[in-house]
Amino acid sequence: MYRWNNDYNHGAHPAILEALQRTNAQSYGGYGQDVWCETAARQIRALLETDRAQVHFLTGGTQANFTVIAAALRPYESVLCADTGHIHVHETGAVEHIGHKILALPARDGKISAGQIEAEARRFRESEIPEHITCPRLVYLSFPTEFGTLYTKAELEAIRAVCDEYGLLLFLDGARLGYGLGSPRCDLSLPDLARLTDAFTIGGTKCGALFGEAVVLLHPSLQPFFRSFIKQNGGMLAKGWLLGLQFSALLEGDLYFTITRQAVEQAMRLRDAVLEAGIPLYLDSPTNQQFVILTREQADTLERSHIFELQEALPDGRLCVRFCTSWATRDEEVETLCRDIRALR
Amino acid sequence: MYRWNNDYNHGAHPAILEALQRTNAQSYGGYGQDVWCETAARQIRALLETDRAQVHFLTGGTQANFTVIAAALRPYESVLCADTGHIHVHETGAVEHIGHKILALPARDGKISAGQIEAEARRFRESEIPEHITCPRLVYLSFPTEFGTLYTKAELEAIRAVCDEYGLLLFLDGARLGYGLGSPRCDLSLPDLARLTDAFTIGGTKCGALFGEAVVLLHPSLQPFFRSFIKQNGGMLAKGWLLGLQFSALLEGDLYFTITRQAVEQAMRLRDAVLEAGIPLYLDSPTNQQFVILTREQADTLERSHIFELQEALPDGRLCVRFCTSWATRDEEVETLCRDIRALR
Amino acid sequence: MYRWNNDYNHGAHPAILEALQRTNAQSYGGYGQDVWCETAARQIRALLETDRAQVHFLTGGTQANFTVIAAALRPYESVLCADTGHIHVHETGAVEHIGHKILALPARDGKISAGQIEAEARRFRESEIPEHITCPRLVYLSFPTEFGTLYTKAELEAIRAVCDEYGLLLFLDGARLGYGLGSPRCDLSLPDLARLTDAFTIGGTKCGALFGEAVVLLHPSLQPFFRSFIKQNGGMLAKGWLLGLQFSALLEGDLYFTITRQAVEQAMRLRDAVLEAGIPLYLDSPTNQQFVILTREQADTLERSHIFELQEALPDGRLCVRFCTSWATRDEEVETLCRDIRALR
Amino acid sequence: MYRWNNDYNHGAHPAILEALQRTNAQSYGGYGQDVWCETAARQIRALLETDRAQVHFLTGGTQANFTVIAAALRPYESVLCADTGHIHVHETGAVEHIGHKILALPARDGKISAGQIEAEARRFRESEIPEHITCPRLVYLSFPTEFGTLYTKAELEAIRAVCDEYGLLLFLDGARLGYGLGSPRCDLSLPDLARLTDAFTIGGTKCGALFGEAVVLLHPSLQPFFRSFIKQNGGMLAKGWLLGLQFSALLEGDLYFTITRQAVEQAMRLRDAVLEAGIPLYLDSPTNQQFVILTREQADTLERSHIFELQEALPDGRLCVRFCTSWATRDEEVETLCRDIRALR
Repeated sequence: MYRWNNDYNHGAHPAILEALQRTNAQSYGGYGQDVWCETAARQIRALLETDRAQVHFLTGGTQANFTVIAAALRPYESVLCADTGHIHVHETGAVEHIGHKILALPARDGKISAGQIEAEARRFRESEIPEHITCPRLVYLSFPTEFGTLYTKAELEAIRAVCDEYGLLLFLDGARLGYGLGSPRCDLSLPDLARLTDAFTIGGTKCGALFGEAVVLLHPSLQPFFRSFIKQNGGMLAKGWLLGLQFSALLEGDLYFTITRQAVEQAMRLRDAVLEAGIPLYLDSPTNQQFVILTREQADTLERSHIFELQEALPDGRLCVRFCTSWATRDEEVETLCRDIRALR
Repeated sequence: MYRWNNDYNHGAHPAILEALQRTNAQSYGGYGQDVWCETAARQIRALLETDRAQVHFLTGGTQANFTVIAAALRPYESVLCADTGHIHVHETGAVEHIGHKILALPARDGKISAGQIEAEARRFRESEIPEHITCPRLVYLSFPTEFGTLYTKAELEAIRAVCDEYGLLLFLDGARLGYGLGSPRCDLSLPDLARLTDAFTIGGTKCGALFGEAVVLLHPSLQPFFRSFIKQNGGMLAKGWLLGLQFSALLEGDLYFTITRQAVEQAMRLRDAVLEAGIPLYLDSPTNQQFVILTREQADTLERSHIFELQEALPDGRLCVRFCTSWATRDEEVETLCRDIRALR
Repeated sequence: MYRWNNDYNHGAHPAILEALQRTNAQSYGGYGQDVWCETAARQIRALLETDRAQVHFLTGGTQANFTVIAAALRPYESVLCADTGHIHVHETGAVEHIGHKILALPARDGKISAGQIEAEARRFRESEIPEHITCPRLVYLSFPTEFGTLYTKAELEAIRAVCDEYGLLLFLDGARLGYGLGSPRCDLSLPDLARLTDAFTIGGTKCGALFGEAVVLLHPSLQPFFRSFIKQNGGMLAKGWLLGLQFSALLEGDLYFTITRQAVEQAMRLRDAVLEAGIPLYLDSPTNQQFVILTREQADTLERSHIFELQEALPDGRLCVRFCTSWATRDEEVETLCRDIRALR
Repeated sequence: MYRWNNDYNHGAHPAILEALQRTNAQSYGGYGQDVWCETAARQIRALLETDRAQVHFLTGGTQANFTVIAAALRPYESVLCADTGHIHVHETGAVEHIGHKILALPARDGKISAGQIEAEARRFRESEIPEHITCPRLVYLSFPTEFGTLYTKAELEAIRAVCDEYGLLLFLDGARLGYGLGSPRCDLSLPDLARLTDAFTIGGTKCGALFGEAVVLLHPSLQPFFRSFIKQNGGMLAKGWLLGLQFSALLEGDLYFTITRQAVEQAMRLRDAVLEAGIPLYLDSPTNQQFVILTREQADTLERSHIFELQEALPDGRLCVRFCTSWATRDEEVETLCRDIRALR
């Protein structure tokens, strides 16, 4: 059986295990104040081409998301995000749990537009009873989105302009950032993200690490006491160097981008096979997640050798299913899947 | 100028001021443990025809809503309500502030259906990753709704059946309850509400009192320690007898229902005048709030003598405006408004 | 029976009921945006001799306390207060409920000192692991304290100096403010409080109103969006003018201070009678609350005609009990109590 | 330099790295639903000699503590713990952040007694105004305590009896559990803990793992939806098998207990050296943390070759410092430290 159900079903890239082995006998300072976290932060700042970024390392994505939001918002402020956004639909109400409302906007292929954000921000600004509604203050985007799609540079610049006009913070959830930057259709770079967002994450868990998300804070208002937010919200790892070490290993010599680019290429091969077989895509994803519309019979056939995820049962009885490649996907696995797809009738 | 902008712009029915005057020299126990709160609770239980109701008195509606919800939900549980529901759009995220997500369902004329509720409850029950989403546990309805509409007995029974099947609590926000029960088109009674809901409020603020909402708790799980929830959430009035006293005065001799019924009759006269004048209604409200579609010129004309609220600017340039009658509305005011509406062209 | 158990067991000063009666037929804007709230705020600013104060009116003390604290603190910040402070021992954990830790300092006669506050603030400043502990950010004082005692001007200035040095906000809970300022031993004035604190409350509920606390915000960081905090925390009264009206009536012609001064004079008469009778005081309170140590027999004797509150059973079997006078206490009541006390053996 | 500053300054026992290496190429189900978590849970239930324990794996101690507390308490309920308890003094107010008050009891050598707990529980039960105070509902103990001390079986049984009488839940924080059970002076076993507590943790981070705490839930009320609490509070690791795998490796063949017992033996050698040198201990700790009173000169001398932690500057100018051994401490390190201590003057 081959597993395509997600991109976090394997351990870590060998370079990570090697680094763990190599440093295991050393002793380090605790709680993220150690040489490896410093090194990794320095590597990240170099990639972002900016010195003003504060970098922290947390263990998971949900944790990273709500910790950033906790640090960004006052109690009466709310979050704008796509109604398909991860924080809205898959994090057990963690943002509301820490006290903030999410104003969900209807997404198109997982994305929201500058116009939608502006309309909501303007509604508050023009309200005659602002104290009866929450004040939108932070825009949450995922990149790639939950549907594998990407914001273009033009789209992100338009959103940034709205944020500037209305005093909104822009936070980009990069749990799969490598697969976004690794897409041939991506026109954004890390320095672009540093310039256009107020905070973003660089996902490790899905991109080669055992676990770990790097939180990059650009906006000065987010930086003071962020370690207090991490600790209070349970995200401070006692042996914090394990996070710095992993990121340092991944960012050494372009490894992070090499392995995620490969995964996207494999996804493109899978996509080509689907289209060749005359099977419809649910939408046009340029990254490692591919959403395919199968008949129930086709799904049954593929399930004999492959594990993949049901995204949604469509009204006409067909199924939208998701195939993920990852840094761990081997070429022969892709070849087998492509062959089995082409053989579908 | 005549004020139709809301139903809480006047003091209190004279019977209330009289009661305050009469008892002012007396001394009472504090925090809602006094003879007047007991009396009013007894009057309410008699009207509900049940002994199992616990009754508490709070000062305001937002407070009553989130206190009930705080007592009803565990942290991972969420609220189902109309996307036009008061807790979702006009309470500054108070429900999220105490930690709970609201799952907003698209409303039709301010109402949601048993079918919509069931679909959402089933989605959780059938989820393969229930720990990644919140568990819908309480249904919030407003009665009348924010658009003046009413649930029928059949609709409420259908919702009750879904709640029973899925283990949901049913909470009805009766901030304008008098205007609902006072409508000729209402087929629900107080005993029906006691039978069909797990908790509901009887609005005082908008129905003749200076302030005050009675919270009626039917479901046994909501009753223990509810006074702790009130105190913790800032809703416990030191001189609690002021609340009991007001409700007792209002419920004496059917006063509450007489004055709200009158207000609805006045609203019906206003509605007739609108229809006679060939002016469209935004929707068909059988209670004290009437939503009327005016041209900008018509609105300007009326604004010379009347104060009313803009609900929404419609895409075609016309305005949806709201006129509220209340227990304080005098017949001559309604006659003037009707005459001015008929004179519109 | 005469009631000395607290200072909120009677309705309101007649001037308040009269004002309610006089304005009952008028209509007003909602939610505290009306002519009476404006008037009362103007009266308060005049008494404070400052224009920079923002004034809001809330219904109760617990509500006022946690709403100010919610507006003042970021999530990782905490409150310093006496271990006998109202927010620590009598508000059902409301401060913790909105997410903040209280660092309780051992009180002496209900008070804490500048030195205690400084020690705690310095502990944080000098900590090598500040992210593992909360950051003290607001000092909560009650004035008078829960034991009727008063901070002197010198004490408050010393606390202010520490607050300035360590960036702490100073919040003074004046639920019984009138009884403090009305004490012959008080050397602080309202302008002093405006100069020395960042926020304080002027209690109405215990000082002649039906209900209501005025929140005075001095520090600019507390003012923006405070109405959002009020609404989100359930403290916004729909008919907000009822609060402004009451404060306006109380502050008209020195009424507030006249009636509270009288209550303190009555308390002093009671105190004299206790001392004359050779009965020990628990502590030396210069305000309307008197704490007296009675034998069980003495308490039983007094309880035949008087209602008062048990504060604490002392280890030696005697009882510390509390007698409160209030704006509603009549001279003949005090005379009776004094006579009964003098008659104790 | 030798590091004695804490017990989480080294990577992991080689058996753990080996397990990671061995399974790295495998793929597993996500979020803790995998064969390794199942295996480790089974191993733990076998050690506890009970089938009724639910076992979960979280990444850190603060996270584990507040997640259990979130699942255990209703909003008006509070936690009883020692005023030296980790949740009270070193977790950035995380318990308050999720809404609960901690009632801190004066500790003796890090411990609280059944009598103290009963007094506090009785105070609530006998209160005439229970709604004004929080309801103590959960007792938090650390074992070993923050001062390395241990509750005896008799003490824990007495606390259990109070909990039973007053309906309190008993939660034991076992971040250093191995060092407690590994002490020659410990008379408690794992089955005892399963019998006497409602929930406890088995610390991995400080006892040989890279990271990870096993949460053992005994009381049925804590078990339903606990995974929702984990996810909502950010404690659910995507590659959850990494936690199960580590615990499984540690619990294989008594490894966990062997390595922690060794560390305690080394601490005892250190303790003997201190006593031999005539240097006073701060208190009598039977586990891996030793608290020693040094003069500033002695501390300076030792700091030339050893890193240890300042616990507290004593009033007389001397220093209370902490030395920790751990699973990673080597015999020659202990020998060096002992020699250097004996050489102190």
